[in-house]
Amino acid sequence: MIAMKSVLMQSLWDFVINSSGRSTPADTERNRATDAITEMKIVTRLLDIQSNEQLQYFDVTPQVRAIIEEAGIVDGFAIVSSRHTTTALFVNEYEQRLLQDIKGFLQRTVPADSAYLHNDIHLRDCPPEEPENAHSHIMAMLMSSSEAIPVVDGALSIGQWQSLIFVELDGPRRRSLNIQLIGNTAKNQ
Amino acid sequence: MIAMKSVLMQSLWDFVINSSGRSTPADTERNRATDAITEMKIVTRLLDIQSNEQLQYFDVTPQVRAIIEEAGIVDGFAIVSSRHTTTALFVNEYEQRLLQDIKGFLQRTVPADSAYLHNDIHLRDCPPEEPENAHSHIMAMLMSSSEAIPVVDGALSIGQWQSLIFVELDGPRRRSLNIQLIGNTAKNQ
Amino acid sequence: MIAMKSVLMQSLWDFVINSSGRSTPADTERNRATDAITEMKIVTRLLDIQSNEQLQYFDVTPQVRAIIEEAGIVDGFAIVSSRHTTTALFVNEYEQRLLQDIKGFLQRTVPADSAYLHNDIHLRDCPPEEPENAHSHIMAMLMSSSEAIPVVDGALSIGQWQSLIFVELDGPRRRSLNIQLIGNTAKNQ
Repeated sequence: MIAMKSVLMQSLWDFVINSSGRSTPADTERNRATDAITEMKIVTRLLDIQSNEQLQYFDVTPQVRAIIEEAGIVDGFAIVSSRHTTTALFVNEYEQRLLQDIKGFLQRTVPADSAYLHNDIHLRDCPPEEPENAHSHIMAMLMSSSEAIPVVDGALSIGQWQSLIFVELDGPRRRSLNIQLIGNTAKNQ
Repeated sequence: MIAMKSVLMQSLWDFVINSSGRSTPADTERNRATDAITEMKIVTRLLDIQSNEQLQYFDVTPQVRAIIEEAGIVDGFAIVSSRHTTTALFVNEYEQRLLQDIKGFLQRTVPADSAYLHNDIHLRDCPPEEPENAHSHIMAMLMSSSEAIPVVDGALSIGQWQSLIFVELDGPRRRSLNIQLIGNTAKNQ
Repeated sequence: MIAMKSVLMQSLWDFVINSSGRSTPADTERNRATDAITEMKIVTRLLDIQSNEQLQYFDVTPQVRAIIEEAGIVDGFAIVSSRHTTTALFVNEYEQRLLQDIKGFLQRTVPADSAYLHNDIHLRDCPPEEPENAHSHIMAMLMSSSEAIPVVDGALSIGQWQSLIFVELDGPRRRSLNIQLIGNTAKNQ
């Protein structure tokens, strides 16, 4: 089996795993820069997002990449985390027809008009104008609220078709998203 | 668009993203303390949890906050991870009626009394008293087993209504949960 | 309540939480090695995986453990992240009958033969040989695309029955998986 290594991944030591589960190192050359013991940098940014639909997707991959570049992180990782109980994250293809399919799946699986105790606003200790959004909370629970993604040689190490997608599940609203970068900077090389 | 920054977030450089997906830096003042290259500290704690119901929720946010304070982490992040195959995590609102709705959703979506191969205990290489809990495993798979959350200015950077919730899915049992804090301490400022 | 601490966990400061939600420190002895401020190491590896079924599971826990050992990480954490839009991760029991149950659950919950807009290949800007795999994307969204797991005293801190499982959802294909280790090495002790 020949390891297919992209330019991005050229410095990584590949393992090969076959369908019987055995693995062998495919390339024992170590990435000296990555393995060096260096000091680390932390940069945290708050992304401010205004949604204008009830369920809406935002591809935030460009913003994560901008923060990697701004912070000068060469080897490290990004942590992205939702800051609301009715927003979520997932990593998938940002293709409009697929995103509609996902919306349809979520709406069939967690119907907004089912009976939910959380929607009995008058029985809860909360303002009467509180939205009836139990389905939005449950949809968020089915998706992710945080993702950690490696940064290798200054680039976010995701696949060609992957985007980091922020989902509004109870819009329109003003929202925020945490993007944190941790790692070594160029000057540590 | 005016960036709404909380006191917690006052040191962050906000990006603004609108519904067309374009983004602009809202505030170019950098947080020097956060961006400084400093050494890092790792503190790992094991939270011991005794459940007494079959499906039970625990808000562990206070415990995570206590460990941040004890460790003195100012800028960094928390990793919380489940250590069992029938427990899980999610970040959402710790509101009792919503938690009942989530329980109902999980029980309808993954019924305990469906036919599961894993529940044919006599066909597996395991003790005969092994519980018939395939549905608990599948519920856990639908939720999270790890979450990463930034710590900014000594505070867990989650939203006002968010709690980090540990879920027992096959109790009552004695359980444990990993809480790890990584970051810079006050004395590095 | 007596804290049950394994050898692995002997250096951790346990909290005890009971079902009323109150917690108390069970052991205030701190792990000096873990808490020491030391420099950190980052090691990123690309695991190369060849699937030969449409939906297939791979237990990648041994590979993660091999990288911990190779990197010499004593205290830190592993980040594992999917690099494809139709692969996923979850942490659960690698038991063949349970894995069949999970497959059945996914296939019932997200049927391959439902109507999906993403499967109208002729209406999309993509090659005509593109697979009709909307269900694979939605299954991936329901599972995880990244997991973060602590490393304590040189060992991956997961439970006895937990495995880190990579899932092919649209095979057979050649796939890759990111495994990243961050932490302190033995020589920092």
